Amino acid sequence: MSNELSSKLSITERQNLEWIAVDWGTSQFRAWAIGMQNQVLARADSNAGVHKVAAGNFEFALLKIIGDWLPSPCVQPIQVVICGMAGARQGWCEAPYRSLPCQPVSEDQLTEVSTYDSRIQVFIVPGLCQKNPVDVMRGEETQLAGLVSRIGNDSACVCLPGTHSKWAQLEAGLVKQFKTYMTGELFELLSTHSTLSFAISKDALNLSEFHRAVADALHKPADISNQLFSIRSTALVHGLDAQLAYSRLSGLLIGLELAATRELWHQQQVRLIGTGDLVSLYSEALLELGAEAVIEDVESLTIDGLSSLYHSLQIESVT
Amino acid sequence: MSNELSSKLSITERQNLEWIAVDWGTSQFRAWAIGMQNQVLARADSNAGVHKVAAGNFEFALLKIIGDWLPSPCVQPIQVVICGMAGARQGWCEAPYRSLPCQPVSEDQLTEVSTYDSRIQVFIVPGLCQKNPVDVMRGEETQLAGLVSRIGNDSACVCLPGTHSKWAQLEAGLVKQFKTYMTGELFELLSTHSTLSFAISKDALNLSEFHRAVADALHKPADISNQLFSIRSTALVHGLDAQLAYSRLSGLLIGLELAATRELWHQQQVRLIGTGDLVSLYSEALLELGAEAVIEDVESLTIDGLSSLYHSLQIESVT
Repeated sequence: MSNELSSKLSITERQNLEWIAVDWGTSQFRAWAIGMQNQVLARADSNAGVHKVAAGNFEFALLKIIGDWLPSPCVQPIQVVICGMAGARQGWCEAPYRSLPCQPVSEDQLTEVSTYDSRIQVFIVPGLCQKNPVDVMRGEETQLAGLVSRIGNDSACVCLPGTHSKWAQLEAGLVKQFKTYMTGELFELLSTHSTLSFAISKDALNLSEFHRAVADALHKPADISNQLFSIRSTALVHGLDAQLAYSRLSGLLIGLELAATRELWHQQQVRLIGTGDLVSLYSEALLELGAEAVIEDVESLTIDGLSSLYHSLQIESVT
Repeated sequence: MSNELSSKLSITERQNLEWIAVDWGTSQFRAWAIGMQNQVLARADSNAGVHKVAAGNFEFALLKIIGDWLPSPCVQPIQVVICGMAGARQGWCEAPYRSLPCQPVSEDQLTEVSTYDSRIQVFIVPGLCQKNPVDVMRGEETQLAGLVSRIGNDSACVCLPGTHSKWAQLEAGLVKQFKTYMTGELFELLSTHSTLSFAISKDALNLSEFHRAVADALHKPADISNQLFSIRSTALVHGLDAQLAYSRLSGLLIGLELAATRELWHQQQVRLIGTGDLVSLYSEALLELGAEAVIEDVESLTIDGLSSLYHSLQIESVT
């Protein structure tokens, strides 16, 4: 069952609803009811991520969360623009990857999905694919589009921390290249399923220990699997505090990612797209290492990215 | 419930039983009934590893497997010498670590465990602890003792592949230092619990792909979490064959370990203690990289290591 948090719309607001923005990821679903001038009228959060929805049930899962936002009567269909894993092969409808170098999103290459309910018209944003070295993203391209709508043709080095952390380079409004690191997933696996998990408590992070661990991983990245085991040895031999162990695990894994991306952040500005504690940790680590870290809000970038597509669709339908 | 494979002893063999050797690890239990001149009279294999035995149940679990080997009547107690995680804090009885540098095992520092059954007298071999950098082993010290009983005072670089792979340096019969790598555990986590698992089939390994992946990890060890993710990207974009994906995962993780230990194996001889496919892969990788790899049989080394302790106990009790 999904946990849902959905704000309601008054009858007047429903009449003002212009379109709906959705970020449908592997484990999370987020939607925003958008009115005139990109005003957010309501938002919904749910754990009904793509992994939890059975094939054939996507339209129902969507309407279950956003159905109450639709005006009644509904004179013309409300457009719903969706980014994320909903466009994966195991999602609602596969939206084939677009190839680099390219703009983060393009209104010409949305995948329109037919729906049973005539009150909605659904478009899915395709992910991006890099041929050499092979890499893929789904969802992050929309956040990058939101960033491009703000910085225009400026170059940027962008880090999007998460389960599969991405480092992307933007130049003249195009995504030139990107690389994915399994940092978040390794953290989850090691902190909950490994022999380290007994030593770890995720209550509070000790920032000094975190920085020490970042430095250790940067100093000897090849040694990572020994450095990880040393969390266990130190817990066994010296009774390492479980919060220090957590700080160490977090620092080692973020440090490993920073060791691999050093030439991107060394004495550079990095735009971090994210939210909460995770993006703050990346920011702390980068600042400590002398980089300039700027945090960009993931929610507003996602809405901006989807919004640019929605508005292009309107222009297209007029012309 | 445990899976057991235990060979039986005839009445005559029971009368010839001198002592019992046991390797009691986290997930596996192995025992050998030993007669005159170290002759193996019978062996038992069980998955009743330490993790499966409740506190207070260790003696019962042991007797359940080796009880049939004991002579009847039993004139004097049969000595049982146990190495492995049975001596851990969560095992039968904690056998405090011995500190490096030291001989792999010492008859003076066995932990004797009192038993309810007077037919057996149980000794547990302590593990080893390195203070700086902190590291621990339990079980491998006995295999190293078996190796020392063969090579005497010769120096050796020893690799013991496994869940927690160890690299140890022996000099003049002493363990000088060692380091643990979580290679095997990372392989298990990634191949069964991660987003890579859908792409992987463990049926058969492709040796060329394995070697390519070893070389990739050696070339850029800091990039490991991107190289791991590329298994997924390549599966999504190019439909990477699941056996190639398995070969790649295996090669990347062993390659990462070899990147960290390069100065130990580069143009050197490495003694690999292990069995089956895993130790063969380490051997293949090392030979390809120009090192000299010699495989030592883990079972006979374990028995030799425990045997040296058993025979020292006899001399001690005579003197």
